[in-house]
Amino acid sequence: MDLSLTQIAELTGGRLAGDGDRIISRVRPVHEAGPGELAFVANEKARAAALTCKAEALIVADGLTVEGHQVVFHENPFAAISAVIAVLYPEPKAEPGVHAMAVVDPTATLGEGVSVAPFATIGAGAIIGDGSRIGTGAVIGDGVILGARARIHPRAVIYTRVTMGDDCEIHSGAVLGADGFGFTSVDGQHVKVPQVGGVELGNDVEVGANSCIDAGTLAPTRIGDNTKIDDLVMIGHNNQIGQRVMLCGQVGLAGSNIIEDDVILTGQTGVSGHLVVGKGAISAAKTGILRDVKPGHRVAGTPPMPLELWRRVWKASQHLPDMRREMKAMLRRIDDLERLVDTEAP
Amino acid sequence: MDLSLTQIAELTGGRLAGDGDRIISRVRPVHEAGPGELAFVANEKARAAALTCKAEALIVADGLTVEGHQVVFHENPFAAISAVIAVLYPEPKAEPGVHAMAVVDPTATLGEGVSVAPFATIGAGAIIGDGSRIGTGAVIGDGVILGARARIHPRAVIYTRVTMGDDCEIHSGAVLGADGFGFTSVDGQHVKVPQVGGVELGNDVEVGANSCIDAGTLAPTRIGDNTKIDDLVMIGHNNQIGQRVMLCGQVGLAGSNIIEDDVILTGQTGVSGHLVVGKGAISAAKTGILRDVKPGHRVAGTPPMPLELWRRVWKASQHLPDMRREMKAMLRRIDDLERLVDTEAP
Amino acid sequence: MDLSLTQIAELTGGRLAGDGDRIISRVRPVHEAGPGELAFVANEKARAAALTCKAEALIVADGLTVEGHQVVFHENPFAAISAVIAVLYPEPKAEPGVHAMAVVDPTATLGEGVSVAPFATIGAGAIIGDGSRIGTGAVIGDGVILGARARIHPRAVIYTRVTMGDDCEIHSGAVLGADGFGFTSVDGQHVKVPQVGGVELGNDVEVGANSCIDAGTLAPTRIGDNTKIDDLVMIGHNNQIGQRVMLCGQVGLAGSNIIEDDVILTGQTGVSGHLVVGKGAISAAKTGILRDVKPGHRVAGTPPMPLELWRRVWKASQHLPDMRREMKAMLRRIDDLERLVDTEAP
Repeated sequence: MDLSLTQIAELTGGRLAGDGDRIISRVRPVHEAGPGELAFVANEKARAAALTCKAEALIVADGLTVEGHQVVFHENPFAAISAVIAVLYPEPKAEPGVHAMAVVDPTATLGEGVSVAPFATIGAGAIIGDGSRIGTGAVIGDGVILGARARIHPRAVIYTRVTMGDDCEIHSGAVLGADGFGFTSVDGQHVKVPQVGGVELGNDVEVGANSCIDAGTLAPTRIGDNTKIDDLVMIGHNNQIGQRVMLCGQVGLAGSNIIEDDVILTGQTGVSGHLVVGKGAISAAKTGILRDVKPGHRVAGTPPMPLELWRRVWKASQHLPDMRREMKAMLRRIDDLERLVDTEAP
Repeated sequence: MDLSLTQIAELTGGRLAGDGDRIISRVRPVHEAGPGELAFVANEKARAAALTCKAEALIVADGLTVEGHQVVFHENPFAAISAVIAVLYPEPKAEPGVHAMAVVDPTATLGEGVSVAPFATIGAGAIIGDGSRIGTGAVIGDGVILGARARIHPRAVIYTRVTMGDDCEIHSGAVLGADGFGFTSVDGQHVKVPQVGGVELGNDVEVGANSCIDAGTLAPTRIGDNTKIDDLVMIGHNNQIGQRVMLCGQVGLAGSNIIEDDVILTGQTGVSGHLVVGKGAISAAKTGILRDVKPGHRVAGTPPMPLELWRRVWKASQHLPDMRREMKAMLRRIDDLERLVDTEAP
Repeated sequence: MDLSLTQIAELTGGRLAGDGDRIISRVRPVHEAGPGELAFVANEKARAAALTCKAEALIVADGLTVEGHQVVFHENPFAAISAVIAVLYPEPKAEPGVHAMAVVDPTATLGEGVSVAPFATIGAGAIIGDGSRIGTGAVIGDGVILGARARIHPRAVIYTRVTMGDDCEIHSGAVLGADGFGFTSVDGQHVKVPQVGGVELGNDVEVGANSCIDAGTLAPTRIGDNTKIDDLVMIGHNNQIGQRVMLCGQVGLAGSNIIEDDVILTGQTGVSGHLVVGKGAISAAKTGILRDVKPGHRVAGTPPMPLELWRRVWKASQHLPDMRREMKAMLRRIDDLERLVDTEAP
């Protein structure tokens, strides 16, 4: 299916500037796009690439100027290109119904239009919301509750005692509800403390490939609405994560933290246990959060410092070996001065 | 199934103080518990929350006092609550036998009471110990040996040449025995060195969700008895890990390390190759172990320092930018002093 | 199957020094090897262990001397032992054909000699090259193209829009082509930007267990020929990775980086987005690459410094608390000197 530039302006609510009859069949990055292809220019940096771009047309952020192109202007080029992609690259439809090689417990309840792919299993008493898609080989444990339009990708595993709101998407290999890492010592041996609290996801939560969200000990590990979790993220037991939080690749949370709304933890950030990361706080990549972070603060380092201080410390640290040498030289000069001044004294 | 408080005291070996007829049907965290629910208070911090707690009853650590509650005192509240959970939240029984949609090689040997769930596969010559449970879609390679009561969760993958003692639990998505990362250079290309040493687990080892333990090159990667491994942990080839070791979330070990008994590596710790981490050593979160660690030492940082030194260095480092400025000022003052003293000299 | 030492010399192209009739049936590490077993000695360090070694014979690097052993000398002992392992530990043959409990879409194209194990799925329009092996429960998405001799291990998941060259090996639990982590903000909510660029692997790429390579947004995330990726590695969307790159365990790349040929990123290195890591650069373990790295540079730290500087900074940093104390003492002495000199002044 193709779209004319006029159709694209209408579809996205953008403003056409140029030949509305141009036909678009694909989207491509601005430095690779050619005839029949649409690219987008969201900022000044991309504008440079647009000068030599051979795309059929461009979506351009309001306020930027791009000469010599057919353009649809839009306040949010990412949203506009998303709308175009949804039309040009439709997701394959999954036929509703249960594949002959899936195993669904007779006590499970499937909503309308649910599709269950081969080799998936759905446990006793599970409830699957309308329009949900259970991918190949996915495992839905006993008693799990999925809201409407859940998208469970192939080989995701949902242990028992997990509930989700509507519109959640769980990528392949993600594991929700495995035992939290809780042990007590009995006669010098580690003995497991059972973890029966489960996991509770709000609405519109996305969990990346091979990420793990462990079950709480007695009450659920909770993830709020519209929170987005990247790949290979580890969320330990009893964490309480707010709404619209972003957890980037390989972030790790030990147990029992409170991560408030709108927090952003960038790649490989770690949070040790029983901490509060305040609303809207942001960590730099690889930050080791070993103490509470105040709302709105930007932090970096292990333990974290304010981002600006951390940058200055890093810069100054490169002079440390010289500083040690200089200090020794100063000490010698002070010794000499003291000897001289002492000598001169009456 | 419910328990009276008298039954709970008997079951756990605790001391009842209060109304033994209270009926408990669930456990909950102390700040959330209400009627019919049991909570526990293990330390002073939790005791504060207990003051306003509405739980039906509490398990309380010996030596603490909690007013106005029905209590069972116990020396180890975690062990006590674990015993209660085992009764109130029984694990679903798995029917012994092989599901019609599992594939078990005819040369494999299954012990008594083994259950094999749908879509699991068991390879040629594998031996599965009595009472083991092979979860949905789990993969047991050719020749693998599992001890008694192995608990292989859905979609765990055990490559060939892996052996386990008794009572091992492998969580979903864990991969044991994949090729170690070993290459040699031939004509400028990376060429794989085959990794045929396999993996050897002792008794009572737990491996968390999506963790990886790679096969040794010529001899097994070994994990000792009662060692506990959290989620997303990476254990490279040829590591020799002792007993009762704790490897927390996202810990990574490069190849050929010796991790002695009772070591604790906390979250996101890394260990580069061919090192010895001595008995009982503990790393702080995010430590980068790039050299041997002595027995019993507590370390932090990359490369690691003694924990206390690392804390003082971090604290002092925040003054580094100021220190540079101050040093420049001192240098000027010393220059001035030298000029003055020189001038005054006869 | 066994090999005589003469056969081993011929097979590997090495030089026999000793009794060619010795029979070898296994390989073992030099400190564990005994009768009937072959070990190898690649460097001076291993030579010490060889002195007390009870192996039937040794493969020894050219230029080393090892007394009292039957030896095959070779310029690359790793390559030699690899050749021996290939004979002594042959990989089990997979019967060509599709298992009755696999699901292959009728529009998929399977090359000659392809084997598809139980519970694997192959999507519509997928093309599988000659001699490929699709493991138990592996998922090959719609339209995926695999070159010749692909080795897809059990439970690997290949989303749609992924292509591979020849001789690629994907370990268990790896996920290729899941959505890149791309969102835009609409009315204060995170809204997904569709990720339709897919993933493109060259020839002879290996991807470790549970690693994730995300789909590009509009164009593919690309991995060059002979690049090797360890376990639990995260490659975000739009990365362009060159040839012969080594990404060690738990490395993480945010989006849109260029990693040039022959780069080595060691364990737990992170790379934030939109950076260039130049040809042949090497990162130390746990490096946080937050800015471009020049070709051939060796870096460490977060943000990275030249490796040698980083080592000196770390060493000096241990004196920081003392330096602060010393500086305060020096300040006092300068104050005193200034008072004295001032007093003495006429």
